[in-house]
Amino acid sequence: MEIVEHLSRIKTSYIREILSKAVDNRDTISLAGGLPSADAFPMSMIESILPSIARESSLFQYAETPGYRPLIDRYKSQFSVSDDHEVIITNGSQQGLDICARAFIENGDNVVVESPAYLGALQVFAIAQSHILTVDQESDGPDLNQLENHFKHTDVKMFYAVPDFHNPTGRCWSMEKRASVANLCVKYNVLLLEDSPYRELRFRGESLPVVSRFCPSHSILLNSFSKYLAPGIRIAGLETPKKWFPSLCKIKQAMDLHTNIPMQYLVEQAIQHPNIGAHLEQIKTNYKKKYDAMALEMSTLIQYGCSFEAVEGGMFIWLKVPVENTYSLASECIEEGVCIVPGSEFVIEGCANPKAIRLNFTLNSIEVMKEGLARLERVLRRF
Amino acid sequence: MEIVEHLSRIKTSYIREILSKAVDNRDTISLAGGLPSADAFPMSMIESILPSIARESSLFQYAETPGYRPLIDRYKSQFSVSDDHEVIITNGSQQGLDICARAFIENGDNVVVESPAYLGALQVFAIAQSHILTVDQESDGPDLNQLENHFKHTDVKMFYAVPDFHNPTGRCWSMEKRASVANLCVKYNVLLLEDSPYRELRFRGESLPVVSRFCPSHSILLNSFSKYLAPGIRIAGLETPKKWFPSLCKIKQAMDLHTNIPMQYLVEQAIQHPNIGAHLEQIKTNYKKKYDAMALEMSTLIQYGCSFEAVEGGMFIWLKVPVENTYSLASECIEEGVCIVPGSEFVIEGCANPKAIRLNFTLNSIEVMKEGLARLERVLRRF
Repeated sequence: MEIVEHLSRIKTSYIREILSKAVDNRDTISLAGGLPSADAFPMSMIESILPSIARESSLFQYAETPGYRPLIDRYKSQFSVSDDHEVIITNGSQQGLDICARAFIENGDNVVVESPAYLGALQVFAIAQSHILTVDQESDGPDLNQLENHFKHTDVKMFYAVPDFHNPTGRCWSMEKRASVANLCVKYNVLLLEDSPYRELRFRGESLPVVSRFCPSHSILLNSFSKYLAPGIRIAGLETPKKWFPSLCKIKQAMDLHTNIPMQYLVEQAIQHPNIGAHLEQIKTNYKKKYDAMALEMSTLIQYGCSFEAVEGGMFIWLKVPVENTYSLASECIEEGVCIVPGSEFVIEGCANPKAIRLNFTLNSIEVMKEGLARLERVLRRF
Repeated sequence: MEIVEHLSRIKTSYIREILSKAVDNRDTISLAGGLPSADAFPMSMIESILPSIARESSLFQYAETPGYRPLIDRYKSQFSVSDDHEVIITNGSQQGLDICARAFIENGDNVVVESPAYLGALQVFAIAQSHILTVDQESDGPDLNQLENHFKHTDVKMFYAVPDFHNPTGRCWSMEKRASVANLCVKYNVLLLEDSPYRELRFRGESLPVVSRFCPSHSILLNSFSKYLAPGIRIAGLETPKKWFPSLCKIKQAMDLHTNIPMQYLVEQAIQHPNIGAHLEQIKTNYKKKYDAMALEMSTLIQYGCSFEAVEGGMFIWLKVPVENTYSLASECIEEGVCIVPGSEFVIEGCANPKAIRLNFTLNSIEVMKEGLARLERVLRRF
């Protein structure tokens, strides 16, 4: 009657613990979480949609596993899902990730991730007891030589990647990298699991096609509504080639029968709402302003040996710091009243800890963000 | 890049496929699903609560993994959760089941289930690659000799049970069986996973304490809001001894970060609503009336060698039929325009198929139910 042993090897999310800490202590400023700004939620749109939910009792009944049919249909047309693909609505992309891990990975199977990588993905792959291989990230995407080496010399099941506004680095893959990675996945018969929660949050530069479009029969795309509607509703879409749809549904069914229907209805109504375009523009304008203010403010950190790359969207700045132990930097930051995420959170055990920290620019007002950075500066000065 | 092999051995839910069939064909009457009556949903209560959701943007932000704090607090006081236990809010009890399977079961571990058993549990344990042992169900609960034999001679990790209004048989355990099973779980250090979705739906007879109360440190209780509020919202509570809480949260976090917050808020408001007591009474009166009408109507089936036990609540009647192959009976029923669930759905491979079918008495109006039974009678007459 013991908890399975391998679970003890999985680290809990520093970010989620910090999140609860930040909630507990109102004076602490969080630059840690990947939280959208609460004033970016389309509350008046939500207010106009919610009453109609109560008029439709069928929205409260059990429903089909893949999701609320009108949302699936609208999703397919809005995101131009091809005829040989299907959509499953999941409780956020996190559940899509877990479904894919359970569908394709058995104990000891090889998975490649970018390094650094999203912690939530590392947790899922750890629970699946996969063997995780990493590929270094260059400024325009993964190191292709390393990637092909893995594919060639190891039986790799899956390559998990965030090609648009990567978490934590904020980087986007170039067109060349997109095509090349897709080709490699086809050539070596590797599944590309493309996680795309930040794609819509581009406030500068040119949007490139999702990598999945270059290898449609070798990829699954996770597309979240968390970032441009709201994360608390936990709704995302998973796009899969039809061949895998029955198996993925089987897993989803065992996991929770189906995702709650009223929130699917809310999303279905929201994404066809006349104001949705303006809403998205407003978020991007808002985040651009916040990002620009933060980037400007952070120029004062260069004197301490810090540096960072400009980003064109997403939620994060990846700040390189001349500090070996970013955990202790993060602890000192908490003492000083500001939360950041140490770079070591984004690598697997045994990998070198990146000398970097992740900062979020979307959650706070510019004023609060400035105060947060001032606290961070005080800590860096001492280090 | 193939789906993991063991997934192909897991059967999909006949019930869920029937459900989608029933949705497709409006003329088909479904006595199959475990669906509450849509007129049992507290729509006016929901209508009064929903607008306030739009006034609180924090309900749309990311939140803590265990759940919406005010719901957890209210749940604890309403269901008298002891101080050494904790609560996690899940996407229905189905997710609670999956979380527990992932926390305690590794490939090949032994799990005991009652036979027949809830298909959704069998699917979860199959995905967990557990070895499933069965214990026969007597009219007042599991066969204790068989159960102790399993516990004594095999290293059993978990006993999964539905002691109140069992699915599919509708049976309730006696007080003696409750105490005895709890004692056996303590004696042999087996986790009791008590699934209790139907408990509140008692319209006759006396309610007995949950089995978990007799072995609190050896049990996890799954308590759903699907049946007395609405299933489409996918909200349930999982009560666990504190010692397992961090591990279960770790799994929940990897699965979907947390359950959606607006529906948790809805439940929190609903269970403290002044009308909730009256609502529950209304459901029970409604279901009692439907059950009594159905039981009366079914007396005409006795001439075909059918029989059933009276139930005091829940959603199902387990009708014994003099038919070897209940799958072909079910197929003929669909031809005749009525859906039922064949008994073979509730047993694992290799077990004798029960000569019985499951009938639901909660979903349909009495009139529709009568027409459904008339169709079933025509099929039974031919068999």
